[in-house]
Amino acid sequence: MTGIEDYTRQYGLVRKIDAYGYLDYLKTHPEAPRKHGKIVLVTADTPLKASRGEGKTTTTIALIDALRARGIDATAVLRQPSMGITAAGSKGGASGGGKASLTHPELIDWGLCGEMAAIEAAQNLLVSFAEKAVDEGKLDTVLVPRVSEVPSRSLRKITVDAGKNNVAERVVLTPTCELMQIVVLSRSMDEIAERVAAMIAGTKDGKPVKFGEFTDLWRITGILGDAVKPALTETVNGSPVYVHGGPFANVSIGIPTLVSVELACALHDVVIVEAGYGADAGAQKWLDIACREYGAQWPSAAVVVTRATTWRDDPALQWRYPFHVQRLEGLNIPTFPLINLWSGEDDQIDSLRATAKDLKFRDPIIGNLFRDGGEALAPQLDAFVDVLGIGDGKAPASPASHKGMPLIDDIRWVAGNAYGVPAERVVKRDGFDESLAEAEQLCADAGFSLNDLALVAVKSPATMTDNDSAPADERTVTLKKVEVHAGAGLVQVNLTTSLTTPMPKIV
Amino acid sequence: MTGIEDYTRQYGLVRKIDAYGYLDYLKTHPEAPRKHGKIVLVTADTPLKASRGEGKTTTTIALIDALRARGIDATAVLRQPSMGITAAGSKGGASGGGKASLTHPELIDWGLCGEMAAIEAAQNLLVSFAEKAVDEGKLDTVLVPRVSEVPSRSLRKITVDAGKNNVAERVVLTPTCELMQIVVLSRSMDEIAERVAAMIAGTKDGKPVKFGEFTDLWRITGILGDAVKPALTETVNGSPVYVHGGPFANVSIGIPTLVSVELACALHDVVIVEAGYGADAGAQKWLDIACREYGAQWPSAAVVVTRATTWRDDPALQWRYPFHVQRLEGLNIPTFPLINLWSGEDDQIDSLRATAKDLKFRDPIIGNLFRDGGEALAPQLDAFVDVLGIGDGKAPASPASHKGMPLIDDIRWVAGNAYGVPAERVVKRDGFDESLAEAEQLCADAGFSLNDLALVAVKSPATMTDNDSAPADERTVTLKKVEVHAGAGLVQVNLTTSLTTPMPKIV
Repeated sequence: MTGIEDYTRQYGLVRKIDAYGYLDYLKTHPEAPRKHGKIVLVTADTPLKASRGEGKTTTTIALIDALRARGIDATAVLRQPSMGITAAGSKGGASGGGKASLTHPELIDWGLCGEMAAIEAAQNLLVSFAEKAVDEGKLDTVLVPRVSEVPSRSLRKITVDAGKNNVAERVVLTPTCELMQIVVLSRSMDEIAERVAAMIAGTKDGKPVKFGEFTDLWRITGILGDAVKPALTETVNGSPVYVHGGPFANVSIGIPTLVSVELACALHDVVIVEAGYGADAGAQKWLDIACREYGAQWPSAAVVVTRATTWRDDPALQWRYPFHVQRLEGLNIPTFPLINLWSGEDDQIDSLRATAKDLKFRDPIIGNLFRDGGEALAPQLDAFVDVLGIGDGKAPASPASHKGMPLIDDIRWVAGNAYGVPAERVVKRDGFDESLAEAEQLCADAGFSLNDLALVAVKSPATMTDNDSAPADERTVTLKKVEVHAGAGLVQVNLTTSLTTPMPKIV
Repeated sequence: MTGIEDYTRQYGLVRKIDAYGYLDYLKTHPEAPRKHGKIVLVTADTPLKASRGEGKTTTTIALIDALRARGIDATAVLRQPSMGITAAGSKGGASGGGKASLTHPELIDWGLCGEMAAIEAAQNLLVSFAEKAVDEGKLDTVLVPRVSEVPSRSLRKITVDAGKNNVAERVVLTPTCELMQIVVLSRSMDEIAERVAAMIAGTKDGKPVKFGEFTDLWRITGILGDAVKPALTETVNGSPVYVHGGPFANVSIGIPTLVSVELACALHDVVIVEAGYGADAGAQKWLDIACREYGAQWPSAAVVVTRATTWRDDPALQWRYPFHVQRLEGLNIPTFPLINLWSGEDDQIDSLRATAKDLKFRDPIIGNLFRDGGEALAPQLDAFVDVLGIGDGKAPASPASHKGMPLIDDIRWVAGNAYGVPAERVVKRDGFDESLAEAEQLCADAGFSLNDLALVAVKSPATMTDNDSAPADERTVTLKKVEVHAGAGLVQVNLTTSLTTPMPKIV
């Protein structure tokens, strides 16, 4: 009998799984045994700054260890951390901490099996093919940026072919690029090839030209060969954890690959999906992009992680945590507050419970997860386990697609629902309308409608509005510019006046 | 009992070996069984152009298959091909062909297990650290180039921090960079860290500043974790082949890592080492850099591959093949001509043997290796096997080091011995003396002598002199510039008027 082992290979200290092959096997063999895992979305309060996490990965790991200690077949799916950022010291790794850790954090944090590097090489090769197309008169402009996983402040703006043609170019971090989005959203290598072919490489005489018109696609998919296979690692307590895909949640879609989640759902009863940054970033994107537009499974529950200090210490920002919890409950997702205690905070448990009660939250799950790992959580999970409907074979339905909705209406919808800012306070910076009109024309010339692309909000991870500390009725969202990622089926819209950094400096 | 299996891990379709660990174990356990393999250098005629190989890898694979068919425990050590060049179509892969192939050419040619990508990330991170040092006033200039494995013509000259500081920079191909040389020449991670610390990052007030003065070395060695482990793959006939390190032979040192060769010698009786391009490139570098300066084993035999057409078709270039064969014999290395026949050339065998006899060569080994693989060679290897002294436990001595020899004398020595051009026809281009003086001063300021570095000739792979087609007594070698790679212990000297391309365009 064929099983998952036939699609799994050892790869140094981890295993890699041919998810495309296995999911295809399940599709063509309806009699083959499989599970119908329920998805739990782990998200967080909006962080106070990008480099200070609330502990989502630590929570995710503690949660599956705790569920497994209760006899439930739980797993987690994580994005691959950016090695460049980790190695450069800009951010810690993303493999948990203390008793809630992965077994080989150095491996996970520092390049895994070369997946990110392969995506980097493939996206840069696309730029080289575009360059060649310029030489051959097939393109006048190149719209696709080069990428680097290693951050370098001075690469934000570069000039290539210096001294001769002085072509202005951009370099962005590898996890943010369109090819990474394509890998995250695709369900087969054929789909990747089709999406790469549909990427707009640049323009010729003002009209869009797609990569499919001049690129050997097999060279791109050749490079991606092993990069499309999720890695399987484990927690220090032996719980399985899948790691695949590494897009950032503030400037991209911030979720693991769809196939890694589907693979996990076929193999386990509960699948924790960790989405990046706060609920306004990765969770919004899981719900409104992955589920609503790309057929991913709607969560059966959500856990919103915060630290006591993030939640309560700044009176002007206290509104954010309850806003996130209530928003998710409003979407009919049973939502559990989880407070990740730090050293010396054990005596706050009673007051935290009282605050949660005042806010009409479900009973919060509270623990020092670094110190105690899953043991801190296991006894607190009765209500959480109850809502999941483990083993009932049902999956909650996703809300209807926004495909065809005018982009500006979709932006207002997100601002209203995910950031709490009504349409009349969604304002446009000078140039936004031109940028929108250009994007609309580019899409029309390429033969599709901008309004059929899914919206990716590009913003600072630490804010939802132009000033989150302003009173509720004064908060605004400023729209800045629009960028089309036709291959990924996405349209990126930069919003809020806070800066996003396409290429940080190292620290 | 501890064995090589304890240092070996499956890594997808290949295995990776902790060579540092195993060689260290052998050093500290003199009683542990080991072999004392003999080294055979496979090199070639100078190619007519960089993209047309003579078939060194095909020969190497056919040769070990043939030796193993004769009951001899033979293996080969190859460099990792450059994925960027392969993917871009600038050059075929380097994993043999036809019956003389590796089992997973697509894997070997397209990034292997991410080794090259890790070296790329680490070298680029060094540049980012240098950038930060500039910000902090510790450096005025950065001397270390960025790298990219993907070729891009327009990256030859770039300006970073465009519109603000407009810093001129270079991007070179990853296989050519100093960090790749360090990985090739080092025998432990500590040695890599020491060598990275000794790399000259740039200058401050005109004086050299080393990376050791401001860089967290553990971040660099962290990235290199798995990249320092040789990969073990096999031929379609099941013969073992180690693949590790990927420097180019024309602009770098063109040889596999020293530890991969030492590992192979401890495990097998005959170890074929393939050095890049012609005998004037990789073979010269194996002999004069690896053996003479870095303690690698002197070859017990050499095989010089050519195609019938390369050898004989151009009357003006016919001198090169016999020159290489005779030069190696002159170094007391038994040297076997090997003619790699192409389709339709079988009827030339007699005439090729006659030409070889006229030239007083040893009996040539001749076969269509693509079509017939090792079977074509096995019956022709009696004399070859005889000279190896398999199992006698002896290794030929290397000639004395050139350490301390003035660089200009060392250059003349190479021109005379490896290219056949006497000292009086080694000429200097305007600016060479200044470049040499600057390099001398840089080294003196850094506390060592330029003359203690090993010479790396940087030149076109297709020529040894300014014009190989000129009559013997008119051939010249023009010296262009000098560049110090202090961490690797090397000094690069650009010579001959032919162009080298640091960053090709894609084709």
